[in-house]
Amino acid sequence: MEDVLAKDWIFSEDMLHFIVEHFEMDLEKTIIRQRLLIAMIKEELEKLGVTTLSRSGDDLYEGDKKLSVSIATLSPVSSLIHCGLNVLNVNTPIPTIGLANLQVKDPLSFGESVAQHYCDEVRSMRLARCKVRGVQ
Amino acid sequence: MEDVLAKDWIFSEDMLHFIVEHFEMDLEKTIIRQRLLIAMIKEELEKLGVTTLSRSGDDLYEGDKKLSVSIATLSPVSSLIHCGLNVLNVNTPIPTIGLANLQVKDPLSFGESVAQHYCDEVRSMRLARCKVRGVQ
Amino acid sequence: MEDVLAKDWIFSEDMLHFIVEHFEMDLEKTIIRQRLLIAMIKEELEKLGVTTLSRSGDDLYEGDKKLSVSIATLSPVSSLIHCGLNVLNVNTPIPTIGLANLQVKDPLSFGESVAQHYCDEVRSMRLARCKVRGVQ
Amino acid sequence: MEDVLAKDWIFSEDMLHFIVEHFEMDLEKTIIRQRLLIAMIKEELEKLGVTTLSRSGDDLYEGDKKLSVSIATLSPVSSLIHCGLNVLNVNTPIPTIGLANLQVKDPLSFGESVAQHYCDEVRSMRLARCKVRGVQ
Amino acid sequence: MEDVLAKDWIFSEDMLHFIVEHFEMDLEKTIIRQRLLIAMIKEELEKLGVTTLSRSGDDLYEGDKKLSVSIATLSPVSSLIHCGLNVLNVNTPIPTIGLANLQVKDPLSFGESVAQHYCDEVRSMRLARCKVRGVQ
Amino acid sequence: MEDVLAKDWIFSEDMLHFIVEHFEMDLEKTIIRQRLLIAMIKEELEKLGVTTLSRSGDDLYEGDKKLSVSIATLSPVSSLIHCGLNVLNVNTPIPTIGLANLQVKDPLSFGESVAQHYCDEVRSMRLARCKVRGVQ
Repeated sequence: MEDVLAKDWIFSEDMLHFIVEHFEMDLEKTIIRQRLLIAMIKEELEKLGVTTLSRSGDDLYEGDKKLSVSIATLSPVSSLIHCGLNVLNVNTPIPTIGLANLQVKDPLSFGESVAQHYCDEVRSMRLARCKVRGVQ
Repeated sequence: MEDVLAKDWIFSEDMLHFIVEHFEMDLEKTIIRQRLLIAMIKEELEKLGVTTLSRSGDDLYEGDKKLSVSIATLSPVSSLIHCGLNVLNVNTPIPTIGLANLQVKDPLSFGESVAQHYCDEVRSMRLARCKVRGVQ
Repeated sequence: MEDVLAKDWIFSEDMLHFIVEHFEMDLEKTIIRQRLLIAMIKEELEKLGVTTLSRSGDDLYEGDKKLSVSIATLSPVSSLIHCGLNVLNVNTPIPTIGLANLQVKDPLSFGESVAQHYCDEVRSMRLARCKVRGVQ
Repeated sequence: MEDVLAKDWIFSEDMLHFIVEHFEMDLEKTIIRQRLLIAMIKEELEKLGVTTLSRSGDDLYEGDKKLSVSIATLSPVSSLIHCGLNVLNVNTPIPTIGLANLQVKDPLSFGESVAQHYCDEVRSMRLARCKVRGVQ
Repeated sequence: MEDVLAKDWIFSEDMLHFIVEHFEMDLEKTIIRQRLLIAMIKEELEKLGVTTLSRSGDDLYEGDKKLSVSIATLSPVSSLIHCGLNVLNVNTPIPTIGLANLQVKDPLSFGESVAQHYCDEVRSMRLARCKVRGVQ
Repeated sequence: MEDVLAKDWIFSEDMLHFIVEHFEMDLEKTIIRQRLLIAMIKEELEKLGVTTLSRSGDDLYEGDKKLSVSIATLSPVSSLIHCGLNVLNVNTPIPTIGLANLQVKDPLSFGESVAQHYCDEVRSMRLARCKVRGVQ
């Protein structure tokens, strides 16, 4: 689905990174997409048995421990979403939790799964757009 | 928050209805909002201890039993989202589940909570829009 | 490419019809697409050896004989382009020419070819959108 | 009303400055807002008894003496309006007039009043948007 | 300037009517244009010596006597502004004032002047759009 | 037609350059305009008797010899199209053809003609926008 987003994920020992690019200039729309992406990451973790997370805006928490960081922004030709998930929670300045603590054994495979589901969701919403009838 | 949406919920013995109206003509944006609303309803149910649901597009399920119906559309001057949640699951043509089965004791209060959180989310996204710095 | 357009062509003894639907509400954009579609129909005919046509706005002519009719409009949820090409030019109130006069032996196959190339062009423009770098 | 504009006014001996920021990328809309802001500044001055001004585009004049400078522009994430009103008219290269000449005793309080009314106008227009019924 | 608006004014014994049509679907923008039109009508009256009016949103008053009615709406393909000014103020259910009371001798010529200045303002704003440089 | 585009053409011994600027931020729309511009250049050459060209996306070819280069991009306040046509085809790294080979005797006058017709086409599309009636 390379036309609407150049999605990728980057794995380091510390963080799993998602970068989403939409070739549109409506930042409010991108921020709604960002919230949906965060909700989807939580849903993907639920499929792995993690049911202790809550979403607050564009952040994921287990109790007061933060799992994620995220930002949305405009480039001169597109809008961009970054979301990073902690893998390990060592040496962090605020209380955090990492995918390792949540028993996510294979962060790479988890990243691939999130990326795939996000693309599926975008495609599904675009198709839904084409099936709507107006009302008076 | 009456300026961007006329949100309400309607309770009958059978269904709890949400109606959201955004005074914008971008239906794709509305469909993204709709998916986020469905994800939020699931999150609100999690706060009541319901952890067995999954979202598929604009539907909520417990296993193969459907909890919700939803549609997004354009009026001549706005975009509209409807979402209905089953309260009771008697006499339905397909396998369904209702809020009653999920031990939601007070659907009215639950509806109020969802409506409040959706408004909070919209406001929070609008404020987030105003804090973004562009990138090169 | 069913997500952005529901393209079809209808063949009668009299006319070959194209219907294009884009799920967007920007009618100016649709009118630019319409002009490009008309230019493409001319280009497809050139591949069949027809080099006598000229385009004037959303019309195709051979000299003062009109080959096409076209209109663009908004539905409540999308924008629509219709273009009809004469097949035979019998009994028309103004000077016309038909695909038969232009030695297009197989209007059905010609219609399929135009539809295919229009979809290719839309896809190609969408991909081009994603490769642009801004300038200062 | 911090979500749609970060409005402020800056007072120096020479000028009273207004900065308006709208988090939208439609510059034509911003230019219409700019003209309305200039018209409103004139209206606010009328409430103080100043009835000698005329507006020409985004400028205010008393006869051929210029009271204001204004510019609208795009930042990478928003649109911006600046409007400066002369306070004193000493040492200006073209014929000018200042708020002091117009007997505006308290420029700070006047700035606050303009800012407040502009916010009220924006809010009022947003609410008006939500009360419209379409026509056929 | 027939491309962006089909502007006209209708004179009866009772009212002078302005109809503005913009071929765009952004109703918020139209509402900003409507406020500017109302401000301009007041400014045109000032040129005739009428300095007793005040604008409140999309209404013009002399004290508590209403001079105007106005509405903005969407058609399926455009946005529309109607503004009517009382000519005579006989037999009105609320306190009103008419152009006759304001010593506007020639409502037809006044209507023509407002229409002309509105077109000039639209053209001037469109040109201003083309002269903007962005900021970082 | 200086309000929507600052169109110009630059002639050197090597290339005839067209620069089009539209004061809008919708890059997809600009890319559609770009394709139409390329189709129009081919149509203008047909009026001079050149019937051997074909268009592929934003390129013009005679067989496998390339006549043109083109790019569309966003500036911070507008969208821009550049199209350059080879005049001579000496010393080019890939197979090319130039206007000289196509017997275009007067590139300057040809440039003026393309620029004029592009402006006419833009104006004609804008007027067409204003004549549309919606459908249900």
